[in-house]
Amino acid sequence: MTVESRLRDLGLALPAPLVLPPGAKLPFPWVHVVGNRAFISGHGPTEVDGTLAKPLGKVGAEVSQEAGYRAARLTALSILGSLKGALGDLDRIDRWVRVFGMVNTAPGFDRTPAVINGFTDLIIEVFGPDRGAHARSAVGMAELPFGIPVEIEGEVLLKG
Amino acid sequence: MTVESRLRDLGLALPAPLVLPPGAKLPFPWVHVVGNRAFISGHGPTEVDGTLAKPLGKVGAEVSQEAGYRAARLTALSILGSLKGALGDLDRIDRWVRVFGMVNTAPGFDRTPAVINGFTDLIIEVFGPDRGAHARSAVGMAELPFGIPVEIEGEVLLKG
Amino acid sequence: MTVESRLRDLGLALPAPLVLPPGAKLPFPWVHVVGNRAFISGHGPTEVDGTLAKPLGKVGAEVSQEAGYRAARLTALSILGSLKGALGDLDRIDRWVRVFGMVNTAPGFDRTPAVINGFTDLIIEVFGPDRGAHARSAVGMAELPFGIPVEIEGEVLLKG
Repeated sequence: MTVESRLRDLGLALPAPLVLPPGAKLPFPWVHVVGNRAFISGHGPTEVDGTLAKPLGKVGAEVSQEAGYRAARLTALSILGSLKGALGDLDRIDRWVRVFGMVNTAPGFDRTPAVINGFTDLIIEVFGPDRGAHARSAVGMAELPFGIPVEIEGEVLLKG
Repeated sequence: MTVESRLRDLGLALPAPLVLPPGAKLPFPWVHVVGNRAFISGHGPTEVDGTLAKPLGKVGAEVSQEAGYRAARLTALSILGSLKGALGDLDRIDRWVRVFGMVNTAPGFDRTPAVINGFTDLIIEVFGPDRGAHARSAVGMAELPFGIPVEIEGEVLLKG
Repeated sequence: MTVESRLRDLGLALPAPLVLPPGAKLPFPWVHVVGNRAFISGHGPTEVDGTLAKPLGKVGAEVSQEAGYRAARLTALSILGSLKGALGDLDRIDRWVRVFGMVNTAPGFDRTPAVINGFTDLIIEVFGPDRGAHARSAVGMAELPFGIPVEIEGEVLLKG
């Protein structure tokens, strides 16, 4: 079963590329392939049309822990959309390597792993427990770009 | 001299695996081996029994700089415990590569390198200055999971 | 055209190695070469003489967005100085890989990408759009060492 047929079975659609907020200039690729390593730039949660997903803001204040979990899940889909765009075929991914999960935290909100689990749970659903396994951190940031509640960067290993 | 005999000579014991705080679910490995690279997930300081080490909280407030240094040292031991569990033998480590050191900072506390030195000093003691050398950052986070004062992630290179 | 002749054409001088603030002890290399990967420790902005560049403080408060952009540009030069010191010749760099850009943010300042663009714009000017391209995150930290407004770490791939 291919990764994309698995996505279809799960009813998951990959979003369009990020629609930049007005005035923003991001002079770097969303995915940068170096040999058999693909590096994923920091992504936030997007809607299917590529706009930044609501709610924006800090988890533990404007954004609930549950909404943070959903934001991390949407961030996984945004990253898969970028990987599909860069690689052409998600089955070029041999396995996941490393993920750095960042949560835009309100003071005192320290359940950051429960938020980033939205990302990890989806990746494991789609790639399975071996191919999807990744080293991970899940930590609280002072601010994230454009007020996004979650940002995730990482690395995957490519086949061949 | 093996790494483990060196640990014994220094009187250092590796802690048991982390005892998860109640309700926490961490669906990722503490160490993820990809080819000859071993990626270390974000670790915090633990006691020998695997429980989170006290004091918890922010360095510069509830946790002094000196207690932060000790927390970083305990984090190094926790990481070595995870590496031993994943690799079987710490001498499979060819050399250290990269470390990202995160300090749970109270407002205005910017001596984060002095805290993460607790990690670096121990790694150099155990592995020596060449094999233990690593690229490093040491920065201040808004929040860390479960209120831990220090979290460290990184990469080591394996032999062969 | 070599990287260093390009730097000269642009009128850019590489700074001296960082002059440590009083009492600071940084027991790690600024650049750590592992095989054909060179890992860059977290750098801040420096003047040509290697002292920390002013202004220090938080972007969005003591440091304007424009001054933050300049700090990120100076951080790129500081990193190039360290790479030159470690590699001998900047043309040993095959291409850029990954950059993690950290901004010391005042509450509410979320234009962190516009700050880290100071780094990316310079690297692209010097290395060109292909060789200089890098995966990137640009996020807001609670505190950075010694009150520096920007800190950047990353990886480059070496030739051969």
